[in-house]
Amino acid sequence: MTLAAKTLDGVLTRIDADLPAALDRLLDLLRIPSISTDPAFKADCDRAADWLVADLASIGFDASKRPTPGHPMVVAHAGDSGPHLLFYGHYDVQPVDPLSLWHRDPFDPEIQSTPKGRVIRARGSSDDKGQLMTFIEAFRAWKAEHGTLPCRITVFLEGEEESGSPSLIPFMQENAAELRADIAIICDTGLHEDTIPAITTMLRGLLGEELTITGPNKDLHSGQYGGAAINPIRVLARILAGLHDAHGRIQVPGFYDDVDELPDAIRAQWQGLSFDHAKYLGDVGLSVPAGEADRTPLEMLWSRPTAEVNGIWGGYTGDGFKTVLPSQAHAKVSFRLVSRQNPDTIRDAFRAWVQAQLPADCTVAWKDHGNSPAGVMSIDNPAFDRARAALTDEWGKPAVYVGAGGSIPIARYFKDYLGLDAMLIGFARDDDQIHSPNEKYDVESFHKGIRSWARVLDRLVR
Amino acid sequence: MTLAAKTLDGVLTRIDADLPAALDRLLDLLRIPSISTDPAFKADCDRAADWLVADLASIGFDASKRPTPGHPMVVAHAGDSGPHLLFYGHYDVQPVDPLSLWHRDPFDPEIQSTPKGRVIRARGSSDDKGQLMTFIEAFRAWKAEHGTLPCRITVFLEGEEESGSPSLIPFMQENAAELRADIAIICDTGLHEDTIPAITTMLRGLLGEELTITGPNKDLHSGQYGGAAINPIRVLARILAGLHDAHGRIQVPGFYDDVDELPDAIRAQWQGLSFDHAKYLGDVGLSVPAGEADRTPLEMLWSRPTAEVNGIWGGYTGDGFKTVLPSQAHAKVSFRLVSRQNPDTIRDAFRAWVQAQLPADCTVAWKDHGNSPAGVMSIDNPAFDRARAALTDEWGKPAVYVGAGGSIPIARYFKDYLGLDAMLIGFARDDDQIHSPNEKYDVESFHKGIRSWARVLDRLVR
Repeated sequence: MTLAAKTLDGVLTRIDADLPAALDRLLDLLRIPSISTDPAFKADCDRAADWLVADLASIGFDASKRPTPGHPMVVAHAGDSGPHLLFYGHYDVQPVDPLSLWHRDPFDPEIQSTPKGRVIRARGSSDDKGQLMTFIEAFRAWKAEHGTLPCRITVFLEGEEESGSPSLIPFMQENAAELRADIAIICDTGLHEDTIPAITTMLRGLLGEELTITGPNKDLHSGQYGGAAINPIRVLARILAGLHDAHGRIQVPGFYDDVDELPDAIRAQWQGLSFDHAKYLGDVGLSVPAGEADRTPLEMLWSRPTAEVNGIWGGYTGDGFKTVLPSQAHAKVSFRLVSRQNPDTIRDAFRAWVQAQLPADCTVAWKDHGNSPAGVMSIDNPAFDRARAALTDEWGKPAVYVGAGGSIPIARYFKDYLGLDAMLIGFARDDDQIHSPNEKYDVESFHKGIRSWARVLDRLVR
Repeated sequence: MTLAAKTLDGVLTRIDADLPAALDRLLDLLRIPSISTDPAFKADCDRAADWLVADLASIGFDASKRPTPGHPMVVAHAGDSGPHLLFYGHYDVQPVDPLSLWHRDPFDPEIQSTPKGRVIRARGSSDDKGQLMTFIEAFRAWKAEHGTLPCRITVFLEGEEESGSPSLIPFMQENAAELRADIAIICDTGLHEDTIPAITTMLRGLLGEELTITGPNKDLHSGQYGGAAINPIRVLARILAGLHDAHGRIQVPGFYDDVDELPDAIRAQWQGLSFDHAKYLGDVGLSVPAGEADRTPLEMLWSRPTAEVNGIWGGYTGDGFKTVLPSQAHAKVSFRLVSRQNPDTIRDAFRAWVQAQLPADCTVAWKDHGNSPAGVMSIDNPAFDRARAALTDEWGKPAVYVGAGGSIPIARYFKDYLGLDAMLIGFARDDDQIHSPNEKYDVESFHKGIRSWARVLDRLVR
């Protein structure tokens, strides 16, 4: 047995033995309702940051909570030689509505037995508290086994990922010297098809817009004005109905100008990946792919831009009925961006397209919910191959490079503001119900995730 | 001076002197938040009924609160000879949202001075508590002046008018003998153009429908499924956008089959009425008539059917942003009906029209919010001419017969279930903001309204 193997085996054995305690720690963190987008939970976000500072300090990190105009950052350093790795995660979570669809309190986590194995059930279990605790637990085991960490490690956790990360770029700029490392490692992605370890190298960008259309200057009685006065709900419905044509193509002028076709090599690799399209839709009760008619779901998901209405409201929405003709109607619309699409250009084009369709008596007001361009990772850094080997060892199947439908703008920010390549590795599964009621994280994802990081550390420091 | 004049003059003098006390009584009633459509206010509806029973009893009525499966009825009788008049009103009120647009608590009423005169500001001040108190105050003054009422009077007040009157027809049927009278008088309408007394003889019907479109079986992350999974908000927007064509004509097949063109005589009478179309729209910040392009606003409002979206909601509607692709989207849609349109036929046609447009993976569920056909009053009953003369005396301008955009199904129910002609008289003004924030009722409407009822009583018993 080589020294490297001995070094790793002790850590892995310790991880296995410590799993019950590691789960207890995660459950503790999950009890904090750190919903970043809702100001009502500001103190809870702060409490989650304090919890992480204390936990990192207990492993020997020099850990601190760092104020921002929004929710605080957690920054922690350990180790003093060897390669310098920066690990990123986020401690904030999505809102929980509709609460009525949760089978238990989203912030009263529980380990549950299911036909597919044990799961950790709670908001944030998968996105992203469970994932960020995989690398922290790997550090804990390594430190316990060897008395020290294998290399220089910086942990960088934010609390605004689910609300557009408004403080992130300024914080990176102001603390660039402290945050510089050899590579950034981001734990906010998933396995491919439940069991295949994956490194994500292509990420879509995101643009979030909120529009309010105003017609009459106050709410009207539909008996007094219905038929004669313009109804902003109808105006909004008409505009949103025209956002896509019958083939799923987005109608904002110029929208596809900077969208590159997928290189043949990548397309071939993706076609080689197992992906059960029927199951992907069937899992959520659907059978017919929506969206662009001439693209496969995987291609749509990883490499094509989208426009979606994420929320709509106007008029009377309570119990019963109210014959109101409302003054205003609202929608939240998001765009997933790819290749060279510039978020500012798309935003301007969308706003102009809406404006051009307004009837004479209507106005539109906008709220900007932030944006980020798409990210395409460079895999030239040798860390990618080493990490792939480590993941293959742990999961027993060859690790693959994949795209991701979601937006993790942080990957691009590490390149733009700190000059770092970013490597995205995570252990979430497609059925984790992130952003939905009854979010879960498999105990297997958590356990093998911790073991994966121990192996990655081992490979990167050899 | 004739006996009749002497009889009336004393009552009118007493009404003038008692106005401050009458306003205090109305303010008391307005403090009770009797929102019938929201179950949270059930006890308040009950309290409003108790208040009215006590007040009517204090004038010598044999008054009682009568239970129903919903909110209670108030029934009160007085007098034992002469013609028998039944007065109808409703003590329930509309919801108050959006509360943020109210300048003060909707249930903390206040008499305010405005450039157009003193107003009573509160939810329900005009619709319908202020109006129903006009006839109760007229009874009080008559009783105080003469020690008795001039004829047989039944007061019949319901608490479910703003939520579809589900208990009304069964109650009428079960209590038909008790409620029978010579004519029903309904106080829930308005003046024409602020100063012209009016008797409403044409009322639109109403059909209320709520639909829920379901796509995926749970809320999804738009990064994981956006573009590939169908979005029920987009489906709903597309269907609602197609409800009218570019000329404002409703697209549900057969919708206009039973809509009669206005008789030339009525059209001529309406064209003789002053109606400032520009002011009608300008008052609410609009300049261009929506709806059917070839109809005048007054014609659209009184004699044409409409379809309106009164509420829409789906996805994330809170602060911030959530990249959810929701499982469901909802809308409340109402139709104003005219002439011979059958509400059940229209409902079935609308539902079939929606169903036919659903994509393969979507389903629609319906909630029925009640309906009523249009009502056209017979004016053969001589009470109409006498009431018109009384109103002309009080307001100094010839009273007119008009139509109404709103729906007061009770008028038709009195005919269908009790065999009574119904006469609709009220003193609301177009700018009362009923169903909207900052509802008001002019003190002049209240004061001259009370005086009008004293004159109507006097004319009807001569």
